[in-house]
Amino acid sequence: MISTPTLLLDEQRCRRNIAAMVQNAEQQQVQLRPHFKTHQSLEIGRWFKENGVNKITVSSLAMAHYFAAEWDDITVAFPVNILEVQLIDELAAKISLNLLVEDASAIAFLSRYLKHPVGIFIKIDVGYGRTGLAPTGYEQIDAILEEISRNNAIQFHGFLAHAGHTYQCRSAAEIEAVHEQSKARFLTLRERYQREFSDLILSLGDTPSCSIGADYSGIDEMRPGNFVFYDLTQARIGSNTHDQIAVAMACPVVALHPDRRELVLYGGGVHFSKDRLIGEPEGTVWGRVVQHQGPGWEDIIPGMYLRSLSQEHGIVVVPPEVPFDFKVGDVLKVLPVHSCMAANAMKRYLTTDGRWIERL
Amino acid sequence: MISTPTLLLDEQRCRRNIAAMVQNAEQQQVQLRPHFKTHQSLEIGRWFKENGVNKITVSSLAMAHYFAAEWDDITVAFPVNILEVQLIDELAAKISLNLLVEDASAIAFLSRYLKHPVGIFIKIDVGYGRTGLAPTGYEQIDAILEEISRNNAIQFHGFLAHAGHTYQCRSAAEIEAVHEQSKARFLTLRERYQREFSDLILSLGDTPSCSIGADYSGIDEMRPGNFVFYDLTQARIGSNTHDQIAVAMACPVVALHPDRRELVLYGGGVHFSKDRLIGEPEGTVWGRVVQHQGPGWEDIIPGMYLRSLSQEHGIVVVPPEVPFDFKVGDVLKVLPVHSCMAANAMKRYLTTDGRWIERL
Repeated sequence: MISTPTLLLDEQRCRRNIAAMVQNAEQQQVQLRPHFKTHQSLEIGRWFKENGVNKITVSSLAMAHYFAAEWDDITVAFPVNILEVQLIDELAAKISLNLLVEDASAIAFLSRYLKHPVGIFIKIDVGYGRTGLAPTGYEQIDAILEEISRNNAIQFHGFLAHAGHTYQCRSAAEIEAVHEQSKARFLTLRERYQREFSDLILSLGDTPSCSIGADYSGIDEMRPGNFVFYDLTQARIGSNTHDQIAVAMACPVVALHPDRRELVLYGGGVHFSKDRLIGEPEGTVWGRVVQHQGPGWEDIIPGMYLRSLSQEHGIVVVPPEVPFDFKVGDVLKVLPVHSCMAANAMKRYLTTDGRWIERL
Repeated sequence: MISTPTLLLDEQRCRRNIAAMVQNAEQQQVQLRPHFKTHQSLEIGRWFKENGVNKITVSSLAMAHYFAAEWDDITVAFPVNILEVQLIDELAAKISLNLLVEDASAIAFLSRYLKHPVGIFIKIDVGYGRTGLAPTGYEQIDAILEEISRNNAIQFHGFLAHAGHTYQCRSAAEIEAVHEQSKARFLTLRERYQREFSDLILSLGDTPSCSIGADYSGIDEMRPGNFVFYDLTQARIGSNTHDQIAVAMACPVVALHPDRRELVLYGGGVHFSKDRLIGEPEGTVWGRVVQHQGPGWEDIIPGMYLRSLSQEHGIVVVPPEVPFDFKVGDVLKVLPVHSCMAANAMKRYLTTDGRWIERL
């Protein structure tokens, strides 16, 4: 029985999300290398294996270390942290490890300290503006390639980009437009470097563009992540419908405020994280309440949402259409704004079948 | 050596913060019952014990369970979650446990299931608007008292309020004004209930009002929490100076963008949490970089701040006055926006003396 905030996982929805993405990649003849930072679970990873996935992406060496127990081809899609060179070397001894680089000095450092081979992707910024080299930053790219060429154990595999600016979109058409622009910028790298590197891999991918089935022709590898669970943020972007969201936080009701039509939940920032949706019809939204359906859940209840979160408290607005017949000790289920962060905060999942799933 | 994001703790600053608050409570002749949700560490708790503190506050039964190993008088300052009645009963068998109630039905439930005595505080809303009964909500208060009176093992101890609206303040004068108003509202409860309950405890407290030494006369107990570490949010409110902040996140530099004067840190939302300061001179700020000082740190570097956080990335703006001579593999130290949430995300501390401190 649920007595404290618990992250519920609907295994069927999750498996459907995985199968749909595998099918999308197959249809487009693109290598799927899903990002596992969202679920961070060996068990959920096996659901991908059952669908033929054999290469993955993570965003830290700690995650690579965790998944190396069952996966032998891992890309760490985060600018390499050279201070962890010892862990890198240990992992490189065991699995095919790919690192992300955007600075020649990092290659020089790795070259000096690594005893085992690693693959290198050069990180490209296709317009998101977070990090990476410009697709036309040939001087810096060539400096990295030059440094790579000095050490046979350090192998250039290709270029990697994350079009995170699809997160600003609000429709499939907008996502498509951002994706096409990003892809066009990215493809120029093949033109320039293909002659020298005929096996060059172009790795691109973000959940929105992969979810809407945007055209990946010319791209070799896609790396969506959040689709395994989806969330309210992705739903607003247009990546998924609410009924594809595979996680919900079950939270006890601890106080009632019928006068202002609010409930207080045991469920706060330490459970959901502090991600929020700004500019929703109701204002700022930190989660949306769904209808109970046995151990699972159904649709969103319109107008019933988390209006604020503090460390342990969540405040729910109850709309006029919903009878205020709640009791202290009830359990509500809430769709998270950002499933990666909520899952990271909770550290495990309870399936709607009543089984605990562990994670990093 | 630091190789991944690490929450540094300056033990001397922390001990000074504790000593100052103990002194404030002594001067005001108010019982200090510090809130331990910020540090959540038995070891740091002992620093309070050394200062004569023997009663504490927490915000979950899990924390109460953790601290019950070394503390025998604990108030859970969160509306009681009746679904955890079994844990409540276990704790009540072992320590003096106080619960927070704002609904008579919760007392009826506890009365039915508890075998061991508990103390009850009625939660009052003195203006914050998060939860609690109005100070004039006599009908509801009396219904709770009536329910309490039916069971000798459930003892009414008094009223408890959190003036969280001091967090909207930007100066000591504003904090003082909010505090005085909150206190005035709160004190009316003593007038009304003192005859019936001569040992009535009025427990009030928030870090801002306690930090500025606001007048607690008439109040029996204060419960500040965040002061143990302080942070940028409290500094902006006016609770502390930057040099009182006792925690800083050490983060490796993983990418350089001299063209736009930005750095990418390994340090994101999973480390800092997603709390931010809106409306700072620079816009939205997610952390501020401080000057290195051996294993510790000194002042904030003006204009050098975290402008955004994603799951693992933090983007630092480097102001024109600061030479852009950073290298991949450097470690920067960053003051957090909200130390309670950052500490909760990190789960342990590295003191500037190089010692790990564990926590819940």
